[in-house]
Amino acid sequence: MNSNQSTADIATLKASAQDAIDNKTKPPGSLGQLESVAVQLATLQKNLKPVVDPARVIVFGADHGVTEEGISAFPAEVTVQMMANFAAGGAAVCVLSKSANASLEVIDVGVNGDLSEFPAIVQQKVTMGTANLAQGAAMTHEQLDSALQVGREAIVRAAGDGIRCVGLGEMGIGNTTSAAILTGLMCAQDPAAAEAITGRGTGLSDEQMPKKQQVVADAMQRLSSSNDDPLECLREAGGLEIAALVGAMLEAPAHQMVVIVDGFIVTSAALIACRIRPAVRENLLFAHQSAEVGHALALQTLKAEPLLQLGMRLGEGSAAAMAIPLVRGAAAVMSDMASFAEAGVSTSE
Amino acid sequence: MNSNQSTADIATLKASAQDAIDNKTKPPGSLGQLESVAVQLATLQKNLKPVVDPARVIVFGADHGVTEEGISAFPAEVTVQMMANFAAGGAAVCVLSKSANASLEVIDVGVNGDLSEFPAIVQQKVTMGTANLAQGAAMTHEQLDSALQVGREAIVRAAGDGIRCVGLGEMGIGNTTSAAILTGLMCAQDPAAAEAITGRGTGLSDEQMPKKQQVVADAMQRLSSSNDDPLECLREAGGLEIAALVGAMLEAPAHQMVVIVDGFIVTSAALIACRIRPAVRENLLFAHQSAEVGHALALQTLKAEPLLQLGMRLGEGSAAAMAIPLVRGAAAVMSDMASFAEAGVSTSE
Repeated sequence: MNSNQSTADIATLKASAQDAIDNKTKPPGSLGQLESVAVQLATLQKNLKPVVDPARVIVFGADHGVTEEGISAFPAEVTVQMMANFAAGGAAVCVLSKSANASLEVIDVGVNGDLSEFPAIVQQKVTMGTANLAQGAAMTHEQLDSALQVGREAIVRAAGDGIRCVGLGEMGIGNTTSAAILTGLMCAQDPAAAEAITGRGTGLSDEQMPKKQQVVADAMQRLSSSNDDPLECLREAGGLEIAALVGAMLEAPAHQMVVIVDGFIVTSAALIACRIRPAVRENLLFAHQSAEVGHALALQTLKAEPLLQLGMRLGEGSAAAMAIPLVRGAAAVMSDMASFAEAGVSTSE
Repeated sequence: MNSNQSTADIATLKASAQDAIDNKTKPPGSLGQLESVAVQLATLQKNLKPVVDPARVIVFGADHGVTEEGISAFPAEVTVQMMANFAAGGAAVCVLSKSANASLEVIDVGVNGDLSEFPAIVQQKVTMGTANLAQGAAMTHEQLDSALQVGREAIVRAAGDGIRCVGLGEMGIGNTTSAAILTGLMCAQDPAAAEAITGRGTGLSDEQMPKKQQVVADAMQRLSSSNDDPLECLREAGGLEIAALVGAMLEAPAHQMVVIVDGFIVTSAALIACRIRPAVRENLLFAHQSAEVGHALALQTLKAEPLLQLGMRLGEGSAAAMAIPLVRGAAAVMSDMASFAEAGVSTSE
């Protein structure tokens, strides 16, 4: 396809969608951000009756060698424990996905523990967690490729199941360290200002924060010459679940899949995916503004307007789950509301 | 009941709920505002497994004599047209309620037109719209009492149907003028600063704005000696649908009914209801921060933290509908998440 032609087609689709939403029985713009989401959905799906159901939340879990540096409030074994909690239905993402009428798929892409006893977990372990990024590359080239492929396959599987919208989440003790490094690199942050992108994660203490900031700053310094190579940054900084998230996003356009980005970690994957393939951005909606420092910078870089500001900072996909009903509402506005003409309602004087 | 005893009981309930939420498998506070909502729900329902389903959105519609002053972008007949649109299922509140898995009840409390042909509309017309508040009292004492009663009955009916959570909305061309006056009076705003609480409603032009501001300022001046009498302010400034909203809120505590306040108009009713009976505040959740000027002041006065900031300004109950899934999620967190002990997950180091 000629790319100019394609751009013109998208502009025409978008104009039709905007026209449709402006003729619904409401003052123009009065549904705020729901209207821009509705236009994005219609443009993406090339359909003035966009659909988001059935919806699925997908959680990729993996471990991080960098936890041996003492950069997390919770011990590394919590990753495997929480994956078991996901399988048992007791975690936040489980109850929030259910309440949002979305199914949940949990994928082991690299947890450092045996999860084979859980049939509810998709078994795609690439390796038992990444190497310590503070000592060298987190992943080998082969591991990176495999993790990307796990993500791609999750979207192919979802599309095969008829899913139209996925919320992407993650589990991995230590992964805010990787996300901070990737955010810093993709947003061209100065390594000396690492504290602006390094947050408390699950609740790191004042005593432990300088160590985490140092790990982030050192990695950014080491990788500063690679920041025009997003995949190399990803391979070096990890993690396996972030690579799977990148793979999922790269696969989404082929299936017109609506992707709801959860929080700081998933947004760091979005920075990588959009750098590799800018068109991915059209598929992405952003669930919320996380309380994690660094997220605002990442969202700004992606020109993303998050749907929720609830002070959440859990990850897992918890905010993506809570955003699904809003995206569903936006689709309903476009698909099901009457126009002024259909309803016989007078327009503004 | 001894009120000190009651306060102590509520404090104990709240502490139990906070303890329960802190022991769920997540870092404390990491679900942000969902946690405070969960605690409020559990305290209100006196139950650590709060429920919000089935949920219902209730829309009260009425007309406003003040529209003859030319203070609205849309003609007054739009109220009756939109009520018909609600009955036909084509309005924003219809499709958003449905997408949020909530039923919808539309009540004619004083529309200036015949809606008797619509069986989907609850017929409780008090009168054919209010008198022009710019010329005198909007309602008689009898009309005010009847409209309050319509609201009370809606909650009694909902409770009888097993409803646990209602989103409250409204329809009435001209009603942002009444809401601005009530907000100004209840928030002790200076009539000379009426522009700080007088917004564009459905989209008033620059030319029409000074007239609306003057109507608001004049009414505030006239009623300034009555602002310690919230019912008299309501009777004078209208409207019938706002009175019904106040009645609904006053009835809510007797049924432990969770009430989601929609936007600027419904918040002005909340200011009145909470002034009459401060305990009502415990039942209220606030759907969103509207784009309508004056709403921020009203929310601040009520110490309300809205759930959504989507730039919506439609009313109807559209934002209340969109907030229901968030409140449902908060209830699910409290009711269904596993504790650290139940899930065998390690706590923070």
